[in-house]
Amino acid sequence: MNEPANRTPSTGQVSVRVRYPEADKMGVAWHGHYLAWFELGRTEWMRDAGCPYGELEDQGGIFFPVVRVGAEYKAPARYDERLRVQTRLARLGGARVRFEYEIVAETSERILATGFTEHGAVDTDGKPRRLPTDLRERLMRHGAAV
Amino acid sequence: MNEPANRTPSTGQVSVRVRYPEADKMGVAWHGHYLAWFELGRTEWMRDAGCPYGELEDQGGIFFPVVRVGAEYKAPARYDERLRVQTRLARLGGARVRFEYEIVAETSERILATGFTEHGAVDTDGKPRRLPTDLRERLMRHGAAV
Amino acid sequence: MNEPANRTPSTGQVSVRVRYPEADKMGVAWHGHYLAWFELGRTEWMRDAGCPYGELEDQGGIFFPVVRVGAEYKAPARYDERLRVQTRLARLGGARVRFEYEIVAETSERILATGFTEHGAVDTDGKPRRLPTDLRERLMRHGAAV
Amino acid sequence: MNEPANRTPSTGQVSVRVRYPEADKMGVAWHGHYLAWFELGRTEWMRDAGCPYGELEDQGGIFFPVVRVGAEYKAPARYDERLRVQTRLARLGGARVRFEYEIVAETSERILATGFTEHGAVDTDGKPRRLPTDLRERLMRHGAAV
Repeated sequence: MNEPANRTPSTGQVSVRVRYPEADKMGVAWHGHYLAWFELGRTEWMRDAGCPYGELEDQGGIFFPVVRVGAEYKAPARYDERLRVQTRLARLGGARVRFEYEIVAETSERILATGFTEHGAVDTDGKPRRLPTDLRERLMRHGAAV
Repeated sequence: MNEPANRTPSTGQVSVRVRYPEADKMGVAWHGHYLAWFELGRTEWMRDAGCPYGELEDQGGIFFPVVRVGAEYKAPARYDERLRVQTRLARLGGARVRFEYEIVAETSERILATGFTEHGAVDTDGKPRRLPTDLRERLMRHGAAV
Repeated sequence: MNEPANRTPSTGQVSVRVRYPEADKMGVAWHGHYLAWFELGRTEWMRDAGCPYGELEDQGGIFFPVVRVGAEYKAPARYDERLRVQTRLARLGGARVRFEYEIVAETSERILATGFTEHGAVDTDGKPRRLPTDLRERLMRHGAAV
Repeated sequence: MNEPANRTPSTGQVSVRVRYPEADKMGVAWHGHYLAWFELGRTEWMRDAGCPYGELEDQGGIFFPVVRVGAEYKAPARYDERLRVQTRLARLGGARVRFEYEIVAETSERILATGFTEHGAVDTDGKPRRLPTDLRERLMRHGAAV
């Protein structure tokens, strides 16, 4: 599921600007907001894979709560700066999914931050459940493609 | 339901500090966060009235979405400053409720902002509904008391 | 400065999707997030007018803190729903600016909410100041155009 | 700097309730808000240590941007649930500081999440700088005490 070196990921990308309330006293984005940007990247990745997250929840009764998250901050993102979120599926187990992210400054192409989220699939009662086969396959196929 | 001049409100008060991510580039609280503080004040007011908002939703199937909001900002609230939210029930109709708020700096006792929210009662399907009599009475009684 | 009836505003529009953390227990956008969307609309309006807000702050030493805000909510915005923020300059005084906003659901073209913000111009020390003539003219020109 | 097993930490604790806008569609706190609670814990720890963060920034010109963050989520925190944030200083290098956190449900005493943040000291220009000796000593002393 590693991204082949000679391919440009065609999906799982989304652009955001640092919003005014997201910048803190230092004039740069507060570190917690990156998790919302990771979420945006993941949301678009899932949509591109043909599994919009909202439908999984509302129709499939499948939720993917975050069980682990990590991020490294290399350079600040300034107010109004344009960022690109790059998302890839890094691991797909029976009931676990791991996504990895890069936050890139669009003007400099500098990587400002990297991070990951790990998710466990649960049903509407919050009980762990295995991923349905067709969902698993769609994620796998999309993860191999991008 | 106006608060008698010679009484100190004994409830509907809650203290908050301006959190780091709530302060913006100017070093002061971003104006939208005041709505979260109004919400805190309202939440404690409802709890004090014996109608915790979570129970209304989960057990009573009653939701109070905001239909109108307004705020006036008189002086900025700085990072880490201690604020008091003062809440009162200003109007109670058949299916409408209006709360009014003051945000007070605890050290100077200066009023930094005032505001209001108006709420319509809806059921779990989002359809308007009248307030149940006992809920109405509890709100009324508490509104008269504080 | 009123928008002529037969013109489609060509600027001051920006699209957003309701983000996961912006949706609350009811599955709809929490009312306070609309103020962030108003801010997005205003930011793009200012950029289109040739006065990017960040430059005003960093180079001009001019800040536009919100002194009054109001919003009316007509219908909920659901998670992942695509919204359009429509912004117009409604009033331009010596040291005061008023913007008005509409939040429109892109699929239904339904207006979900309307609102306004009023701003006072202040310098880096937070003291009120008049708008510089060239800034005033640029805002006026853009306000007449859109 | 490890906390001796037979001591109850007397500081670095702060209570929060899950706010309405912090709960998501699942009715539980969105995972990114835990970083704001970690920040609250760290803020109180610093205040207890005699080094209020705001003073470091405003008077000392020292900033502590987060360079790495991680969190593990064991059980959800529900809307209006009362949580305790427990903070300890885990490492103190020449220019690096690491804090570790636990988020505990106050009624059940269950640990809902754990996490850490790593910070690099920078000056007002964002350049790395060593911690001043007196600050370092105060942090060390407080870290040993709690």
